[in-house]
Amino acid sequence: MKIGCIEGIPIEDIPIRRWSMLEKVDVRFLKKPEEVGLKEPVMIEGLPGIGHVGKLVADHLVKELKAEKVIEIYSHHFPPQVMVEEDGTIRMPKNEVYVHKSTDSSPDLVILVGDFQSISSEGHFELVNAYIDIAKKFGVKRIFTLGGYGIGKLVEETYVLGAANSKRLIEELSAYGIQFEKGEPGGGIIGASGLILGAAQLEGIESACLMGVTSGYMVDPKSAKAVLDVLIKMLNLNVSVEALDERAKEMEKLVAQIREMQEATVQQWKSDEDLGYFR
Amino acid sequence: MKIGCIEGIPIEDIPIRRWSMLEKVDVRFLKKPEEVGLKEPVMIEGLPGIGHVGKLVADHLVKELKAEKVIEIYSHHFPPQVMVEEDGTIRMPKNEVYVHKSTDSSPDLVILVGDFQSISSEGHFELVNAYIDIAKKFGVKRIFTLGGYGIGKLVEETYVLGAANSKRLIEELSAYGIQFEKGEPGGGIIGASGLILGAAQLEGIESACLMGVTSGYMVDPKSAKAVLDVLIKMLNLNVSVEALDERAKEMEKLVAQIREMQEATVQQWKSDEDLGYFR
Amino acid sequence: MKIGCIEGIPIEDIPIRRWSMLEKVDVRFLKKPEEVGLKEPVMIEGLPGIGHVGKLVADHLVKELKAEKVIEIYSHHFPPQVMVEEDGTIRMPKNEVYVHKSTDSSPDLVILVGDFQSISSEGHFELVNAYIDIAKKFGVKRIFTLGGYGIGKLVEETYVLGAANSKRLIEELSAYGIQFEKGEPGGGIIGASGLILGAAQLEGIESACLMGVTSGYMVDPKSAKAVLDVLIKMLNLNVSVEALDERAKEMEKLVAQIREMQEATVQQWKSDEDLGYFR
Amino acid sequence: MKIGCIEGIPIEDIPIRRWSMLEKVDVRFLKKPEEVGLKEPVMIEGLPGIGHVGKLVADHLVKELKAEKVIEIYSHHFPPQVMVEEDGTIRMPKNEVYVHKSTDSSPDLVILVGDFQSISSEGHFELVNAYIDIAKKFGVKRIFTLGGYGIGKLVEETYVLGAANSKRLIEELSAYGIQFEKGEPGGGIIGASGLILGAAQLEGIESACLMGVTSGYMVDPKSAKAVLDVLIKMLNLNVSVEALDERAKEMEKLVAQIREMQEATVQQWKSDEDLGYFR
Repeated sequence: MKIGCIEGIPIEDIPIRRWSMLEKVDVRFLKKPEEVGLKEPVMIEGLPGIGHVGKLVADHLVKELKAEKVIEIYSHHFPPQVMVEEDGTIRMPKNEVYVHKSTDSSPDLVILVGDFQSISSEGHFELVNAYIDIAKKFGVKRIFTLGGYGIGKLVEETYVLGAANSKRLIEELSAYGIQFEKGEPGGGIIGASGLILGAAQLEGIESACLMGVTSGYMVDPKSAKAVLDVLIKMLNLNVSVEALDERAKEMEKLVAQIREMQEATVQQWKSDEDLGYFR
Repeated sequence: MKIGCIEGIPIEDIPIRRWSMLEKVDVRFLKKPEEVGLKEPVMIEGLPGIGHVGKLVADHLVKELKAEKVIEIYSHHFPPQVMVEEDGTIRMPKNEVYVHKSTDSSPDLVILVGDFQSISSEGHFELVNAYIDIAKKFGVKRIFTLGGYGIGKLVEETYVLGAANSKRLIEELSAYGIQFEKGEPGGGIIGASGLILGAAQLEGIESACLMGVTSGYMVDPKSAKAVLDVLIKMLNLNVSVEALDERAKEMEKLVAQIREMQEATVQQWKSDEDLGYFR
Repeated sequence: MKIGCIEGIPIEDIPIRRWSMLEKVDVRFLKKPEEVGLKEPVMIEGLPGIGHVGKLVADHLVKELKAEKVIEIYSHHFPPQVMVEEDGTIRMPKNEVYVHKSTDSSPDLVILVGDFQSISSEGHFELVNAYIDIAKKFGVKRIFTLGGYGIGKLVEETYVLGAANSKRLIEELSAYGIQFEKGEPGGGIIGASGLILGAAQLEGIESACLMGVTSGYMVDPKSAKAVLDVLIKMLNLNVSVEALDERAKEMEKLVAQIREMQEATVQQWKSDEDLGYFR
Repeated sequence: MKIGCIEGIPIEDIPIRRWSMLEKVDVRFLKKPEEVGLKEPVMIEGLPGIGHVGKLVADHLVKELKAEKVIEIYSHHFPPQVMVEEDGTIRMPKNEVYVHKSTDSSPDLVILVGDFQSISSEGHFELVNAYIDIAKKFGVKRIFTLGGYGIGKLVEETYVLGAANSKRLIEELSAYGIQFEKGEPGGGIIGASGLILGAAQLEGIESACLMGVTSGYMVDPKSAKAVLDVLIKMLNLNVSVEALDERAKEMEKLVAQIREMQEATVQQWKSDEDLGYFR
């Protein structure tokens, strides 16, 4: 963008200190990676998506681990709006990167959370480029992207479906109960959770997507809980699951209610049909 | 854009003086900011939007204050057209910045008005970048963006809803009767009026959005009048409100008529239903 | 676009002569403007649009004047396709610039014709930038853009509606029977024919749009003939109108048939209604 | 994309080795063209399209000729997703270039195959620019693009329709039974198969599009077989057609079934009409 001038006033003559424009993909470091000093960290991505499964898990980890925010990401690929908080203050849409330095047998973590994915197709690629950049700057050795896998009906028994960018990782993950089903998901994995795996593959970073099976109709803490359980086992994380568990239980009640309503509706339709209302 | 050549004629060999292309976001200064010499000015944005509330207020201020035009903004993000004036002359769509040097206790003003907002999502970000640039070039200390808040039904008693990028500003604005309702607007603030607040926040410029509550069905000078009243009080402005007041009164009559028509229509439907026309 | 390399082969090591990529807006000069040596030429634009009025006139002028092609314009903003000619050869979509050196009292001409306008909103601005560049390279003093003005019903007596970027030009054109109606066209002038006027205004080049009034339902040589007649008078052009006239007459027959059909249809509907088919 | 910093940490101070970002059009050479050393090769393009005709033929050639992969192409213009393979590993969408060095009278080949065409209009132009680049780097003398020509109904006797960027090529191809029908395809040739011909024309590379006539309703190996047969004759290729032939025969059975079903449906409709169900 040029700030042009009419009538011969060149822009350079307009004295002003340099400021920071909001770039198309604007990655702002609050702390230098080498200051943070992580040791072969694992990256976890949990952005909004189907059932908000990934977001629920990653947000939970950030909170429970009291992870430290080190990066803010703004982008022209997010919706052109601000959010309004409860108290009337506004908030620019952004994604954030948090870090957690482990003090036990679990690995150091780099956690990517946030408000939005790209709203344009090309934007997805530009944002994923930035995510992979960040992973490399922190020396990330492995990436887990989290998401939901919507099956279009209420889920009786949720489980975690996987996909990975290396066979070795599939074998390893299978041992933790993650399912790898022949050619599932059939339509591929769309958005950041998928593209990160692809871009990481080109960079030689092992990466897997863990998808909690969900209806796809609503935010699903129960499915998120299933993904969290697997992550805890795999990474030896020492985090409480209580908060998510509680939400999951509330949801189970909600689902039970929905089921009842559905059955009642079906019943009603049937009797209406018997009475010949629809002909 | 390259102006290429076939058969070995390099573009440099085509003698022509340099001209000014219409850039993607083309900010043309008619006067240097330091020539204007404003003192800690307040910026007011009033571009087209819901009920044209913001535009009505900002245009009114420019006219009543006889503000001076200092910038024209053209952009590829506006619709690809020209407007035709009453006399048959055309006009390129543009936004404009006017300045007003105060001679009393009111602050100096930088007023952003114009024909359009961006028609693309990414364009909103590029234009808002330019608006914030301009604010910084003039040393703006505070920004008020003006807009309408559509509630989808005729408004009995209009009032001004607020959102701001700092808690301090919310407290200050509350004293002037601006309402900050829990989590309103629920969908966030879309377009320039919202994004300016977000971008200003990143630059450390205090900023609030003042939204006149309106139906959202039509241009609403009554709602604009409510916003203007608040601005006058807050900024100690010495401007007549007559012109806007008159339009507001005309509109009140119109709304009364609409209300009557609505009631008549409802009445008609009811009697039609009684007569069994719809079954 | 980067032509990247895997495994350390830098692109520079891949020996290949430079070629000409198809740029986003790719203006290819077949002849240098100073070789052509036009004297204060008038530019005429006639690209596809409503009723193909502008295109019909400009193509007619190129043919009748045996104008010489001096520029080809390719663009990523055209549809991603090639056209197939009668003999099976393909043709890349392009716009073209022709020049005509006058030997009488008419001015030298620069004529812009072609296959497409931009299919994206931003592309319109980039292409119009190129058209204005070209105008300046040839020293164009005045631009006439040609188009149709669709009124949504069959036109009894066609005429030419105008809009211009200077009052002086409006006065001048009025003398040739071009009509300037209060605030018409109400929706502004969309696309190249409008934007050229706006961009030319910013560059200080006088410019007007001549719109043949037309139904907007079909290609309209009759409306094109009206525009051509005005141009001939104004520019003192020595061109036959026969070819366009013939097409216009054929069209008048077609319109007469359509009118009859319409009347018959209306008649049919009326009698159907009388018979109570629609209730 | 800028990797910006807050609070004065310039990006240069963040030590990290350079990595390879995924560019908008990302062409990765696995082998240098001069290492491959092809002799006046013919390029064949077979990307996904109508009936997957082109893709079926090109994939078949790559497999039967055991061609060597020399380039991978990634792009922001492909859908923002990864594909999931049968074993749960993911795959980044990509197009690929294979080479075949001939040991007989057939020419050396450069074969372009892959997962996707551009999903945006402008992306088609950028990708085709890359394809032409590649052709030039390998010294390609002639390009055949392969596709399907959908006629919207089941095809009794398939044949190959052609279009070319030179008259000489049309004459030559006619001798092999390729049909050049007056003004067909009427709507032009959309996508890579068409644009490559246009861009090649501007570069002086002879090029033709061979379109297998197909219904357009389904993947059509029978139509692909017809295109392959012509290619084999023209280029003197020594490849088995068995695999494609088998798929074509299976398809013929499928089409026979569809035909029966269609007839049965028509029959049903007719009898329903006789019974007066639709009135």
